[in-house]
Amino acid sequence: MRRARRFEAVCCALAMAATGWSGAAGAASSSPDAARERTVRLQREALSGDGAFVLVRDLTTEIGARFAGTEKDRAGIDWSERRAKSLGLPKVWSEPVTVPRWIRGGASGEIVAPWPQPMTLLALGGSTGTPPEGIEAEVVAVENLAALETMPDEAVRGKIVFFTQRMRRTPDGAGYGEAVPIRGRGPAAAGKRGAVAVLIRSVATDTDRFPHTGGTRYEEGGPRIPAAALAVPDAELLERQLASGQAVRFRLALGARLEGEAESANVLAEIPGTEKPDEIVLLVAHRDSWDLGTGAQDNGTGVALTLAAARLIAAAGAPRRTVRVLLTANEEFGLSGARAYAEAHTAELPRHVLAIEMDSGAGRALHLMTRFAPTDAAAAGELATLLAPLGIVPDAEPASGGADLIPIRPTGVPLVDLDQDRSLYFDIHHTENDTLDKIDPANLRQLAAALVTVADWAAQRPVRLATAPVEPEP
Amino acid sequence: MRRARRFEAVCCALAMAATGWSGAAGAASSSPDAARERTVRLQREALSGDGAFVLVRDLTTEIGARFAGTEKDRAGIDWSERRAKSLGLPKVWSEPVTVPRWIRGGASGEIVAPWPQPMTLLALGGSTGTPPEGIEAEVVAVENLAALETMPDEAVRGKIVFFTQRMRRTPDGAGYGEAVPIRGRGPAAAGKRGAVAVLIRSVATDTDRFPHTGGTRYEEGGPRIPAAALAVPDAELLERQLASGQAVRFRLALGARLEGEAESANVLAEIPGTEKPDEIVLLVAHRDSWDLGTGAQDNGTGVALTLAAARLIAAAGAPRRTVRVLLTANEEFGLSGARAYAEAHTAELPRHVLAIEMDSGAGRALHLMTRFAPTDAAAAGELATLLAPLGIVPDAEPASGGADLIPIRPTGVPLVDLDQDRSLYFDIHHTENDTLDKIDPANLRQLAAALVTVADWAAQRPVRLATAPVEPEP
Repeated sequence: MRRARRFEAVCCALAMAATGWSGAAGAASSSPDAARERTVRLQREALSGDGAFVLVRDLTTEIGARFAGTEKDRAGIDWSERRAKSLGLPKVWSEPVTVPRWIRGGASGEIVAPWPQPMTLLALGGSTGTPPEGIEAEVVAVENLAALETMPDEAVRGKIVFFTQRMRRTPDGAGYGEAVPIRGRGPAAAGKRGAVAVLIRSVATDTDRFPHTGGTRYEEGGPRIPAAALAVPDAELLERQLASGQAVRFRLALGARLEGEAESANVLAEIPGTEKPDEIVLLVAHRDSWDLGTGAQDNGTGVALTLAAARLIAAAGAPRRTVRVLLTANEEFGLSGARAYAEAHTAELPRHVLAIEMDSGAGRALHLMTRFAPTDAAAAGELATLLAPLGIVPDAEPASGGADLIPIRPTGVPLVDLDQDRSLYFDIHHTENDTLDKIDPANLRQLAAALVTVADWAAQRPVRLATAPVEPEP
Repeated sequence: MRRARRFEAVCCALAMAATGWSGAAGAASSSPDAARERTVRLQREALSGDGAFVLVRDLTTEIGARFAGTEKDRAGIDWSERRAKSLGLPKVWSEPVTVPRWIRGGASGEIVAPWPQPMTLLALGGSTGTPPEGIEAEVVAVENLAALETMPDEAVRGKIVFFTQRMRRTPDGAGYGEAVPIRGRGPAAAGKRGAVAVLIRSVATDTDRFPHTGGTRYEEGGPRIPAAALAVPDAELLERQLASGQAVRFRLALGARLEGEAESANVLAEIPGTEKPDEIVLLVAHRDSWDLGTGAQDNGTGVALTLAAARLIAAAGAPRRTVRVLLTANEEFGLSGARAYAEAHTAELPRHVLAIEMDSGAGRALHLMTRFAPTDAAAAGELATLLAPLGIVPDAEPASGGADLIPIRPTGVPLVDLDQDRSLYFDIHHTENDTLDKIDPANLRQLAAALVTVADWAAQRPVRLATAPVEPEP
């Protein structure tokens, strides 16, 4: 679908490039030409500096993992505020957010029969625990939710259901969308069929011996059975034992539990606009990470890119509109900060003239997607022209924003996606292996250049982007 | 050196090919032509089958890690005997070996200041433990043993010495030889200077968050301080904190300890020769593994390749000389099985007409190296000609055998090395990540083909290879 429509989008972008920028001419400092020159200059500055890399380096060195509700989460709030101030952003503050407090606890598991082997695994985010001695049961393998549906009850009841679905490696992350239901909904679905626990093959493209975490959701009032992700080599070993045709018994012990709530915060930093301070360009990244790794690509890069882009804009002088960085609390385990922001800023949302979220790792931006009003078709072309030197190609698929934009998307805020190459992202996503060394500083320069281009363009253009028509949320 | 001398070796091999096989003509079944045809046929069979892959698949599926002296080590003895018999090898037995019993115990470590972070680490093999509460001290970084020598005593005394040497990625494993002294001798050297513990950057080419284990050796009567390997991302994080110029404090807790000895065994399997049963072609691989991973490439592949080659030979009918597979106990932590073999078989060693060890992972064989008597220069050419179809090129560097051949090397046994591509081996070597999925079955086919060629050639050729001159051991 996306591929088929790209040609049309490119043609459109080229047509726009030929017509030049649209909009009324303003004062010299905010004339289309001056604004464009400024944006291009900021793009070049971003390309020649390592501001974003230094930020993610320092965040991972000085804080590391920062799971919502933990001490490190609070340290991350302080770090973000302190750093935003030291970057020269004029206004920095935090807003309280209540987050659920989920404790991972210990995790162990082993194949008991036919051939005993210890397994590398961890609890899915939100999973309940097992009794301290663990749960031992026979394993039944199913590929995915659809395959589970076809299983007779007696094949599932009292068993540990093992979801074996493999994830495809794709640049656009489509493989993740295909495989992730086994994690998000597998435990709830297997519980309803009488399973006693769930194992999944990690939703992952690597074959390293790291289990990949990520949230799972039980249904209100439905059974809550313990659920764990196996590292890919362990999932394959379990499959090989099952392939022997012998009954495979497994023991799983998880110390996971929910323990009420904790206080966290969204951190905000902004450069108030000179002419239209009440019109807001919103750059969003989640501040939290899972408890594994050092949260380098998920989402240290997003934090670093949004702050680095804002710093470049602040250093160039405040733009016409306000540029606001929103570093949210607890994206990973419930979008707490994004929801709190939408609630606390309801009145302002109609004046959000653009929102963009950075939360796709450290691969280069490949495509530009927009969700603009039909009357702003030319604006998309302007932006495409500005991004073309970075090797970013327009794509006709509409922008969707990231998870943290879900709560404000229904307002019709104009959205931009910088669609990143995610070919390698799901090798390290949600694992201990999400560390600084996997980030290519050259990619961060391109991403920072793209982000500052989007932000400065939206903040400086003569006419604000109009609210977009809203499709019903699925 | 090796590169410079290859041309000469190739020329030699081609000259041999032109002269044909040397040696007296025997009976039809053992004539040079018949023998050659048989060897070539076995090579082709190995190339077209997955016998070795199936063996390493089953060993990792049914046994997994098998560290010397553990229950899994004993399970591995049974597995090896059972499997060797089921492959049709006429004579299968085991010989007792006493092995040291080292317990890894728990391992934890953290940077305490300036910026607290948990570290991914493990004890080096043979390390002593810390008090249960751990050791906390300031960290001093040195690149390697030479750099430690230049440090004043007061910079080391009471500190945790952190060896930071990086390992080069090379096809021939030379980078390992350069870096491994920080692991083998670093703790002893730092202890003598008054350090309280040692951390090393893992001796590794990957940047995954797996610490790499491996043995360390204390000196007789010297200080024994606890020693741990950091995963590469953790070593780099520690280096970044040190680069801040602030004092870095570290807490290390290791439960490692030696606990006497345990019983293990060498497993042997042989095809007695029809004409010269007392002349032995020895195929060696160590049966044990470290306690991490499933011992797939270290050394499941070696076990699988030696058994698979022997099976092909047995199926073709017993050769003139005896082909013996020796699967040793405890190579990793002291060469116990290799030493026991040399002792138990002293009288036979002069009749070992060739020895080859497989213990370099699952990369393709690139080069042939030999250590033959000067009178057998033509034999090296014969072998090179036979291996040429597999893309294996002769190298003038003499064969050295692997670690398990150290005890019998002084007898002058003719040696062959199938020098494997080790470019990727040190990404997973001695880690949890040494699992089946990293093995390319196509590589195992080439390796099995090469090994069966060497073994069958040595077992069938009309004249035995002569004992080689012995250089003094270093």
